[in-house]
Amino acid sequence: MVNTKAALRVGGAKAYGPAAVVTRRATDKLREGHLWVYRSDIVELVPALDGAAIDGGSIITVVDQRGIPLGSATYSDTSEITLRIVSPEVGLTRAVYLEDVKERLGVALALRREVSPECFAGSGTTGLRLCFSEGDGLPGIVADKYGSLVVVQLLTQSTAQDDVRAAVVEALRASFSDESLVIVERPDPKVRELEKLGLPPAEALYRADPGSAGFASVFELNGLKFNFDAGSGQKTGAFLDQRLNYAAAARYARGEALDVCTYQGGFALHMAQVCKSVTGVDASRGALEVAERNRALNPGLVAEVDWIEADAFELLREMEASGSEYDTIVLDPPAFAKSRRAAEGALRGYKELNLRALKMVRDGGTLITCSCSHHVPLVDFMGVVRSAAIDAGRRVQVLETRGAAPDHPSVVTLPETDYLKCVVLRVG
Amino acid sequence: MVNTKAALRVGGAKAYGPAAVVTRRATDKLREGHLWVYRSDIVELVPALDGAAIDGGSIITVVDQRGIPLGSATYSDTSEITLRIVSPEVGLTRAVYLEDVKERLGVALALRREVSPECFAGSGTTGLRLCFSEGDGLPGIVADKYGSLVVVQLLTQSTAQDDVRAAVVEALRASFSDESLVIVERPDPKVRELEKLGLPPAEALYRADPGSAGFASVFELNGLKFNFDAGSGQKTGAFLDQRLNYAAAARYARGEALDVCTYQGGFALHMAQVCKSVTGVDASRGALEVAERNRALNPGLVAEVDWIEADAFELLREMEASGSEYDTIVLDPPAFAKSRRAAEGALRGYKELNLRALKMVRDGGTLITCSCSHHVPLVDFMGVVRSAAIDAGRRVQVLETRGAAPDHPSVVTLPETDYLKCVVLRVG
Repeated sequence: MVNTKAALRVGGAKAYGPAAVVTRRATDKLREGHLWVYRSDIVELVPALDGAAIDGGSIITVVDQRGIPLGSATYSDTSEITLRIVSPEVGLTRAVYLEDVKERLGVALALRREVSPECFAGSGTTGLRLCFSEGDGLPGIVADKYGSLVVVQLLTQSTAQDDVRAAVVEALRASFSDESLVIVERPDPKVRELEKLGLPPAEALYRADPGSAGFASVFELNGLKFNFDAGSGQKTGAFLDQRLNYAAAARYARGEALDVCTYQGGFALHMAQVCKSVTGVDASRGALEVAERNRALNPGLVAEVDWIEADAFELLREMEASGSEYDTIVLDPPAFAKSRRAAEGALRGYKELNLRALKMVRDGGTLITCSCSHHVPLVDFMGVVRSAAIDAGRRVQVLETRGAAPDHPSVVTLPETDYLKCVVLRVG
Repeated sequence: MVNTKAALRVGGAKAYGPAAVVTRRATDKLREGHLWVYRSDIVELVPALDGAAIDGGSIITVVDQRGIPLGSATYSDTSEITLRIVSPEVGLTRAVYLEDVKERLGVALALRREVSPECFAGSGTTGLRLCFSEGDGLPGIVADKYGSLVVVQLLTQSTAQDDVRAAVVEALRASFSDESLVIVERPDPKVRELEKLGLPPAEALYRADPGSAGFASVFELNGLKFNFDAGSGQKTGAFLDQRLNYAAAARYARGEALDVCTYQGGFALHMAQVCKSVTGVDASRGALEVAERNRALNPGLVAEVDWIEADAFELLREMEASGSEYDTIVLDPPAFAKSRRAAEGALRGYKELNLRALKMVRDGGTLITCSCSHHVPLVDFMGVVRSAAIDAGRRVQVLETRGAAPDHPSVVTLPETDYLKCVVLRVG
């Protein structure tokens, strides 16, 4: 598949510096506004005129097989997503890229202040996502705020570097006048392994070891308090994307409530403000311990709250068999489908959970069912819910179809960034 | 296609009374929870044993071609949607149907009190949909509340009858203690013609001629006042389904705003609470006159408000050509696609409006784009928005994907009832 003519033209253009030649298929997708090129769509890597090898983490120019430039991208020599477009310009220098990072982060922060002002009032809600990677035009850069603690994640070979880290800190400091703001970096070991980034750096943003008291914080969502510890937890420790869905659950829930895959109690504690009893289920004892500490932070909750450490599938099977019933059930499982291939199995998993839950909801009760797999689009997820409703023999009304909070924007030309679905159902 | 064996079996079963034999295709859809049978899927109508003809408006049993019963349905001898399932039972009598109507209307009203309590507080929001046809298991029955005025629509041969009208009034009176509640029926001339229902009845719910002072009302949505006149207007006079999207627009809008297809000013006046200026565009002078009267009802609005009587396509073409720019644009066109066949043309219409609007939104501005065509599902509508974004050369973030307010529930097994899409975009 090597197209040396394209390589020659790219080399001949001289101005580009290092470049990647991509397939027709990738070219078409990029022209349609997509931002990723998979490894299998790389035809050839063309070094700069000095012949230096192209290092993972470089910014390189992307060209089609005729040598026509398509923009500049970050390059990873390990990730399946090999190129991530960061600019329509060609021959982007690292210095210009760093300026872009600061500018876009400023835009991302301004967006939050505008569309989520409740997160900046100082109380009520103090947890939000400040920057969402591709969603904010900043592939590989995520930043979350938990009270006065900002947690940065640098998730690619290009962004997990000292210069990007410094640019991110500079932009964050410029946006927040609060000098007590603590900015930490929380590396994801899996991602660092995948991107062959080595162990986390020992200094830079690390003001102490993760897990030390200095990185623990209490933050608020919709008036409820939650613990955050930068040294533990999935993702960055709380599901900020569900913030407004938690609030919706508190509007719809009543009676006896069950929260399946409660993690650290997000849905459960919101429902505990209005329900008679709430049972939160999770397979992780560590998560439930945090959930219980979160419960203790909120003495005003009216519900009895119980936590059950169990596999969701096994527990729902048992509960259904024993005739358990609830007025309100929340299903918020982790992403079953980590890849396109796994989507079919994921649909089976969603079907089973939703079927059992629909059988257990009392007449006139509510099921709030979520999916965070971007490989399972809304239309497929609704198909699963429909199928479960038919098998359960229940009449099901859709009251709301919700997504992630607006501090988790998706990119209209990159549907992969639209991942969270939260459907509120009335079960007759 | 006449299957006399099925007809004989149905006749032999005796218990059913009149019945309709439907095709395999319709049978499969009904078994999957769908609720409609089109005329082309009726194999045969089988009269009751007394041989009496089956009148339009009857309740009849639905059977497959083997004679296996599928439920009871209302029958129309004129509508393309010939059967609408109202019960899984067979041989449903009219008396039981009327009891079902009262019970389901009671459930529908209880649902609103539970999930939209803000609509029952007496002020702030006093307009909502009380009953939404198939969405509430009551095909052909719609009821909206505007302050102390309830407007009922009986939209099929089966429901536009005195006994159903009486059952609806009884259930509404039982739910509202307010004796000053005025209940009126507002017939849709087009629907009555289609269903060959004749002219509206002269008495029954009509306490005065529609259009008289007795049927005018002022109601509130999200703290704003609106005129309602049962004697005029599309649908039932206001787009209650957009209620929470209006509120969302008031959160996102700023600066100079344009509301395309403003009708009676719903989005425009909500944005006028926060914007510098708002321009509302509609092709209907009558609608804009109501919009202006609505503006006058709300003296606290901060924006300058202008109304332009114009065709949306022509005006946007001119505005774009003359270099007009806005900080916020709302597109809320009427349903372009009235049928599946018209969907392609509708997509072209949506594309043109969205493309022009995207070109006219200032950097960092907001486009709120709606579609109420149920023949254009969300995934297709997002495809149009994506294509418009590419052609406009704009970076577009999706902040929220919204639907109708929860007083407009859809049925999970009848995707046709899920029709309203409202997407909030940040344009870079």
